[in-house]
Parts: sequence; structure tokens; C-alpha cells
Amino acid sequence: MSQPAIVLVRPQLGENVGATARAMLNCGLTRLRLVRPRFPWPSERAVAAASGADAVLAEASLHDTPAAALADLQVVYATTARGRDMAKPIVTAREAATLMRSQIAAGLNVGVMFGPERTGLENDDITLAETLVTIPLNPHYMSLNLAQAVLLVAYEWHTSGNPPPARADIPPAPKEELFAFVDRLEQVLLDKDFFREPTMRPTIMRNLRNMWQRAGATSQELRTLHGVVSALLGAKGPPSWKQ
Amino acid sequence: MSQPAIVLVRPQLGENVGATARAMLNCGLTRLRLVRPRFPWPSERAVAAASGADAVLAEASLHDTPAAALADLQVVYATTARGRDMAKPIVTAREAATLMRSQIAAGLNVGVMFGPERTGLENDDITLAETLVTIPLNPHYMSLNLAQAVLLVAYEWHTSGNPPPARADIPPAPKEELFAFVDRLEQVLLDKDFFREPTMRPTIMRNLRNMWQRAGATSQELRTLHGVVSALLGAKGPPSWKQ
Repeated sequence: MSQPAIVLVRPQLGENVGATARAMLNCGLTRLRLVRPRFPWPSERAVAAASGADAVLAEASLHDTPAAALADLQVVYATTARGRDMAKPIVTAREAATLMRSQIAAGLNVGVMFGPERTGLENDDITLAETLVTIPLNPHYMSLNLAQAVLLVAYEWHTSGNPPPARADIPPAPKEELFAFVDRLEQVLLDKDFFREPTMRPTIMRNLRNMWQRAGATSQELRTLHGVVSALLGAKGPPSWKQ
Repeated sequence: MSQPAIVLVRPQLGENVGATARAMLNCGLTRLRLVRPRFPWPSERAVAAASGADAVLAEASLHDTPAAALADLQVVYATTARGRDMAKPIVTAREAATLMRSQIAAGLNVGVMFGPERTGLENDDITLAETLVTIPLNPHYMSLNLAQAVLLVAYEWHTSGNPPPARADIPPAPKEELFAFVDRLEQVLLDKDFFREPTMRPTIMRNLRNMWQRAGATSQELRTLHGVVSALLGAKGPPSWKQ
């Protein structure tokens, strides 16, 4: 059991269970358990909403009570939109992900419970869990649907185990290529009497250098810029634009 | 502007825009911009799907082009499901949240672009942004809908802390100034017959746009670049350099 089970307690709509399967699979989760869904199971509407994640639905298990759905689990989290007056620790979804990682690494069988769409988990359901999970959201407007709540918990699980990929590097040109371009441009601008005030020259050139340094211009880009300058210099007709 | 704008480019379904407003408001985001939705606007279906977040819809702005929707922004992120062969940094949604926090703390006007449901952003849209954002998901099954993608980016924004502000010393120009410069340059290069192979034009212009996007060119720098182009165009003598 290398991942937590997702336990949906008395879900109301097949669409939402399908969307939940889709949200789970996006995050690599495949262990789905249903407690007494309020629609016939299996559900065509669930399959339609699963967008190709129907293998998750096909392998979902069906249970009569929350206790039965949790029977083989050793650690259970219960999701709740609001704080409850319950003698239980409350953690955020991100904290829960970290906790579950270490519990699963220790060989424990872990699950997360979600309640019905409209009402959430009842207190009797929550007593079956050790820990409450909340998703920090706008306190003035909390209106996640079931699949979105599962998505955020599953996303935290997924990202907790997957350090961000290394950046795709954009190799900047060797500095000599950058310097050669800027030196050429400076010479051209001198020839064009661009620096009417000679005192402006260092400032302007420093600004231009800084800009291209920040851009981390590549060799290809510098070749293009050389071509641009040559093209502009090769002007035959009058300029089509005047500043 | 204490939060990023969410820019939906050519969304296909009103329901998805409504669900996006709902996802945004859950995370405290209210700045929504739409580029040429493919359904009549305002949209009853959007309102129905917004579940009480219709104030976000009512205040959404409508634009004809991505460039118009981004005009007053100084920093733009483009979301993409897959890595692209683009000379741009790629960050995760969590990294983007941290970056946006410090950029906004420094007084910058920031936005995140999302593409159409089926296809995502086109390369021409992406060239308008400095940075790509990916959401790390199951590499074997990535199937977020639009509102879920917005939810995850908005959730990362909401949960991200408040790091010290970035150096505010280089405020990039509003995008319209950058776009105007690149558009002018493209026109000038057309006049100079720079694009000998017409098929090269989009690639060359994309490369140039990407480079200046990365540079985060300031208004002052763009004025200088305009002056440089004018100076080069005003050539009297023969070019002093040939490539």
C-alpha cells in the first residue's frame, strides 16, 4: 500500500464520483472506496465523468458502513470544511501529506475520508478518524465540490513526494558573444550620432547591457540581433517609422 | 493590485468559466479577464456554475486579444500541461506562487494565462509571457479541466506565505509598451525585407519576443530601444559593420 485510500462516504451524485476518480488519477492515486452511494453502482454517469480514469472506478470497493470501509486501515484522516469541537488534532492538507508519507513509509495502511457533497461528514463518521484535515481557503467563501476537495488533498500528496523538476535550462551565450554584439551596437550608434550628449553614452550603454544580461540572451538570439542591426543599417528607402 | 489576475484565453464553455470563478473565490482571487470566449457573454451557464461567486463574473473584463488582456500587466505567467521547446523558465505552481507574492509585494501587476479547454495555450499566446507554469501531476494521466487547473494555481497562491518583497528596482514596463516596440520592430524588419523566407518570420519574432520578455524590459529601456531603431533607420552613410 504505497498510497492512501480515498473513502467517499454516502456520495450523492455519480458524476462527482467520476470526477473524483479523475482528480485522483491526476495525482497518481488509485485506491477508491465508496460507502453506500446514493445512486446505483456501477454508475454510467460516473464513468462518463471519469474522463478515462474509469480503471479507478472499476477497482473501487463498495461498503455498507464507514467502519467497514476503514476496517483494514491503520491510520484515518477525516476531511472537514470547518473546525469541529472534537478532541482531535487538525492539520492542513499539506501537513497531512507529509504525515501520510512517513506513515506509509513505515508500512502503515492509510486512508482519507470525505463526506457527502451537501453536508460533509457527520460527527459519527469523524469519530472513526484520528486526525482532521482542513484545506485552507478563503474564510468568506468556501465552496469546493467533492472532486475539488479530493483534488487538493491528492495534489498535496503528489507534490509532497515529487520535488519540483529541475528547470529547463536556457543556456545563455558565452559572454564574449554578448559583449561583441553590444560593442558593435555601440560603435554603430556612435557612427549614427545617437549619443548627442557624450555624457549620456555610458549610462545608455550600461542600461542596454543590463537589459541583455538579464535576458540571458542565447547565441541564436544574438545572431538574430546582429541580423536585425544589419537589416536596419541596410536601409534604402526612408524609415517607415519615426519616433 | 494585491493579487494576480486570471486570464482565460478563448474559453470554450460558459460552465467552465463559472467553475473557474468559483475556484478563484475559494482562494480569495477576484480579478478575472476573458479573451474572446467562444460563447455569448455574459453567460447564464457561467453564473449557474459559479455557485455564488457571480460577483467575480460580473466584474470580469472582456478582451479581443491576449495582448489587450495583458496590456497593463508587468509580469505574465503562462500555464502549460507539457514542457515546451521555448526559451523560457519553467516553474511549478508552488514556485510561481512564491514568485508572484514577492512581485506583488514589490508593487508589480501580475497575471496568469490559461488556454482553451481542449488545446491549451498556443505558442503565440505563450510568447507574451515571461515564465511557464506547470502543475506537477501523474505523468501517465494528466487530465485537469480548466477550473481545476485554475484551482490548483489559486490554491498555491492562497497557501503560499508572505516572503520578503523582491527588489523593486527593475519594474518592467506595462506589456503594451513591450508589444508596441516589438510590433514596430517587426514592421520595420518587414520593410527591410529581413524575413527572406516568410516562414521564418513567426519563429524569429517569437525568439525576439521571448528574449525581451525574459529581460523584463523597463519603460526606460524600451524608449532607448525605440531610439536605437530610429537611429539605425536614419542611416546616412554606409553601415560600419557587416555581419
